[in-house]
Amino acid sequence: MTIKDARTPASSQDEQPIQGETSTEAGKSIGWHKAYVEGSRPDLRVPVRQVHLTNGQSVTLYDTSGPYTDPLTETDVRRGLTPLRENWIIARGDTAEYAGRPVRPEDDGIKHTSPRGGLRNLDAVFPGRPRQPRRSRDGKAVTQLAYARRGEITPEMEFVAIRENVSPEVVREEIAAGRAVLPANVNHPEIEPMIIGKRFLVKVNANIGNSAVTSSIEEEVEKMTWATRWGADTVMDLSTGRNIHTTREWVLRNSPVPIGTVPLYQALEKVDGRAEELTWEIYKDTVIEQAEQGVDYMTVHAGVRLPYVPLTANRKTGIVSRGGSIMAAWCLAHHKESFLYENFEELCEILATYDVTYSLGDGLRPGSIADANDEAQFAELRTLGELNQIAKRFNVQTMIEGPGHVPMHKIKENIDLQQEICDEAPFYTLGPLTTDVAPAYDHITSGIGAAMIAWWGTAMLCYVTPKEHLGLPNRDDVKTGVITYKIAAHAADLAKGHPGAQDWDDALSDARFEFRWEDQFNLALDPDTAREFHDETLPAEPAKTAHFCSMCGPKFCSMKISQDIRRTHGGSREEIEEGMAQKSQEFAAAGNRVYLPIAD
Amino acid sequence: MTIKDARTPASSQDEQPIQGETSTEAGKSIGWHKAYVEGSRPDLRVPVRQVHLTNGQSVTLYDTSGPYTDPLTETDVRRGLTPLRENWIIARGDTAEYAGRPVRPEDDGIKHTSPRGGLRNLDAVFPGRPRQPRRSRDGKAVTQLAYARRGEITPEMEFVAIRENVSPEVVREEIAAGRAVLPANVNHPEIEPMIIGKRFLVKVNANIGNSAVTSSIEEEVEKMTWATRWGADTVMDLSTGRNIHTTREWVLRNSPVPIGTVPLYQALEKVDGRAEELTWEIYKDTVIEQAEQGVDYMTVHAGVRLPYVPLTANRKTGIVSRGGSIMAAWCLAHHKESFLYENFEELCEILATYDVTYSLGDGLRPGSIADANDEAQFAELRTLGELNQIAKRFNVQTMIEGPGHVPMHKIKENIDLQQEICDEAPFYTLGPLTTDVAPAYDHITSGIGAAMIAWWGTAMLCYVTPKEHLGLPNRDDVKTGVITYKIAAHAADLAKGHPGAQDWDDALSDARFEFRWEDQFNLALDPDTAREFHDETLPAEPAKTAHFCSMCGPKFCSMKISQDIRRTHGGSREEIEEGMAQKSQEFAAAGNRVYLPIAD
Repeated sequence: MTIKDARTPASSQDEQPIQGETSTEAGKSIGWHKAYVEGSRPDLRVPVRQVHLTNGQSVTLYDTSGPYTDPLTETDVRRGLTPLRENWIIARGDTAEYAGRPVRPEDDGIKHTSPRGGLRNLDAVFPGRPRQPRRSRDGKAVTQLAYARRGEITPEMEFVAIRENVSPEVVREEIAAGRAVLPANVNHPEIEPMIIGKRFLVKVNANIGNSAVTSSIEEEVEKMTWATRWGADTVMDLSTGRNIHTTREWVLRNSPVPIGTVPLYQALEKVDGRAEELTWEIYKDTVIEQAEQGVDYMTVHAGVRLPYVPLTANRKTGIVSRGGSIMAAWCLAHHKESFLYENFEELCEILATYDVTYSLGDGLRPGSIADANDEAQFAELRTLGELNQIAKRFNVQTMIEGPGHVPMHKIKENIDLQQEICDEAPFYTLGPLTTDVAPAYDHITSGIGAAMIAWWGTAMLCYVTPKEHLGLPNRDDVKTGVITYKIAAHAADLAKGHPGAQDWDDALSDARFEFRWEDQFNLALDPDTAREFHDETLPAEPAKTAHFCSMCGPKFCSMKISQDIRRTHGGSREEIEEGMAQKSQEFAAAGNRVYLPIAD
Repeated sequence: MTIKDARTPASSQDEQPIQGETSTEAGKSIGWHKAYVEGSRPDLRVPVRQVHLTNGQSVTLYDTSGPYTDPLTETDVRRGLTPLRENWIIARGDTAEYAGRPVRPEDDGIKHTSPRGGLRNLDAVFPGRPRQPRRSRDGKAVTQLAYARRGEITPEMEFVAIRENVSPEVVREEIAAGRAVLPANVNHPEIEPMIIGKRFLVKVNANIGNSAVTSSIEEEVEKMTWATRWGADTVMDLSTGRNIHTTREWVLRNSPVPIGTVPLYQALEKVDGRAEELTWEIYKDTVIEQAEQGVDYMTVHAGVRLPYVPLTANRKTGIVSRGGSIMAAWCLAHHKESFLYENFEELCEILATYDVTYSLGDGLRPGSIADANDEAQFAELRTLGELNQIAKRFNVQTMIEGPGHVPMHKIKENIDLQQEICDEAPFYTLGPLTTDVAPAYDHITSGIGAAMIAWWGTAMLCYVTPKEHLGLPNRDDVKTGVITYKIAAHAADLAKGHPGAQDWDDALSDARFEFRWEDQFNLALDPDTAREFHDETLPAEPAKTAHFCSMCGPKFCSMKISQDIRRTHGGSREEIEEGMAQKSQEFAAAGNRVYLPIAD
């Protein structure tokens, strides 16, 4: 495999060098650019972020931002992204297009509204190329799990192998064993495949979605591209208000990452918010609607069983999961077992025909420190373990959702139990939040728990934004949530000793030690804010090449002294001990002052 | 002990009720107010933050904000705080005032400046009441450790016992065993005593300080009161530029919390930044200068020994501690053992006469993931263990500083080794930062490590602000750093099962579950931001009494459903199982819809 440089494409050698966000003034870093690692076939190109250092080296980082950061690819949100995977899917020959379910006004929650509906700024219907949904020809599983079990390495598997820097066989094995999922609906050919499993890099999901109260389609599409730009590996569209169908269409057609949903939310809109009026038929229809659109994974709260509902009665905060409480309300109203649990096998059959991945929801997750690891939570987890085994029988890829609010000393029990009960299926946790007392900072209360649980084996972390418990996240909140969770994920990659994870830290620390400020910024998880903070204290341009920083100022600098020590004492232990006294004299004689001769 | 209500003081019954930050409109919460818990004597009044809930209950929280949040106490930064402890210190009869060391212009780094010097806005010399320094009468130890070892429970110990809700005997025992410190210089009678030890609440330190590059005295005093307002338990004044002495005087006279310093920084200023020109005499003189002013604890980098310096030569980021690199430079320049190590016993004698607590600095702490837990770091730690034993011989209270940059899987080794080597002396760590790749977010990279290491036994956490590695923290950064670290500390208190710690979480979660929005805000670590975030999405006043929030909107609400479940199914397990089917019918019959009848 070779890295193809998006700056000098074969077909446009005379184009301008294309760069990231720093300027190209002479003598300065051009920052970073998008490049591609080619696989075994020309249409298998894995995107990477190539950071160019001022010392001539470069660092290759995992990239989730999609074609939006590639200036050689034209993108137009009204047309959607190029369907990368289309030929791979067609070539397998096991799926076919079909008419599909007709889209109805109530899919968008529209009943009494004018044709212009509640849609703002964008057309009601996605204007991109016409498409028909696709499903398996024979009703059998066309899932990456089915292929992996048969020993096939798909282009999707090769793609993620390159992305993760492992062999394709490792990818296949992990999927086949159910320890990893590769969410990739046959109706979402636009995605750049990624994998979720404990042997791979820890992933981050960002939630977006309008609600009954606020926000528009346009905002949601922008939040999706914004979230992936900062590193979101998947995006869940949790829209609950009007225009759910149309919002999702826009998001899917423009998303380079897998999209997850909670079909129950849309189903509830279709019965005007009356949980007791939900039926298996309405739910199933909604799942098919979303599967035809291309949703890659669906949260299904089939573990909220009738007998577990009373277990929540004496909790401090009851049921805090929206899906969990919808199902609890339904069970109570009818005094019947959950229709999701009862019809789970049929649901498996549907999901298998599109390769929709299960995300088995933890509807009874604890919503407060007091409720962590209680009977309700673990009763549901045991049911999820049972459902996981059923899903696997149908070749449906499956991950398991986890809490929630959990104090640090109770976190490990969650992942250990989940791994045991669910046969090592990927765990996908929301935080957990390690205290309840800091609304407005729950990205941090949960970032702590997220880093820990990921170190111990959680495969994907669902981000929490500063607005959790208080309101809907705006653009800044989405960014803060993603960055916080990328920190947690990377900290976990380091703690797990993931091969190559530390290279990034080392490159940044080298740059820091050598006062290569521009390199520090460009290697940072958030170059913009790092640069802005530096400039706040030392705004002048020379400060970015200065061999000191604002903490100590120019008169004295710790790093400078360490550089002197290295110059004076580097080498083997023997050399060091031998030469120490002598070199110390040289150090003094040479006037190697501990401060730099820059005017105060 | 009784709680004395600052709203209705005996002497001013007719005064207005005094409240926190929420308005007092009829029917609304008055938020919170400052109260005092009285001890065994009238001059022993422990401040608490009393939060008043709309359900008539109240919650008592630990309070570090000092008299500034007590509207019955007049404060004036030009006069300084009332010296609370003065009578306790005098009553012991073991100290006396003396003339003290004359203050010299070079203490403020002033050599060539006009009388107005670099001082802005505030007078050069602190204008408060004249005072003479105090020290022990006979040169013997007047430390809380000495008293504890003799079996004496001082008023300071009783104060912290009330604050921590433990018996005074526990406080005395922990101090006597060297497992806790109560930093309280006899020259800093203004402080409200606090304790640092693993059996107590985890504490947070905030660093302030001007530097050669930026910031004024006024700003530093304001940063100190600001940091304590948000929960800083101690403050370190790390000033390095001009006016060090005067800045410190202003900070000390106005600080309700113990103040720490690194005397080496000022000593370096006195030799114009030339580390090799430092001498034991200059250092000792600086320590006495600061002890006379009232510094409660001092970071001393006596563990950076000559033979350890070469161990840093092949590190990725060398020596990143400012104090560590000053001492390394000195050792190298002279090829001599550290003057701090060589004169450590004399230093102990000095500190004992003022009750200055040692914070034995980790000058060789790792500055990058690559350097964590290396030979240099642990060699120094072993020396700190040796110095801890010497300090204890002189009855000097001692804590040990810790790293730095450490990936999660290497954190536990740090605290375990420190506790073993240093005879369980309190560990005081900077983070640790769990990855290097997120400059501008190092409050978060380090908050993760801080929470974990505190859970495992670290007694105090030194905050890290978003500006770490990039610039000097401003007011907002100080607040963000303190709040992040209060989260880490409280998460650790919960994980350690600290008695009563969860009451706070429970009170907030109850308020959340019952939609008592104002109570949620008032109980939050940062009520202002929580309220602001809520109002961003749902600004109208009725939204603060509404039984829904912006996440789901009025049509459907998880919490509401849980409340229905509790109403329907609360009680013993038997009652629940018995009544379930019947109640389910009632539920449906009563039209208990899963959404609220609020207009969409």
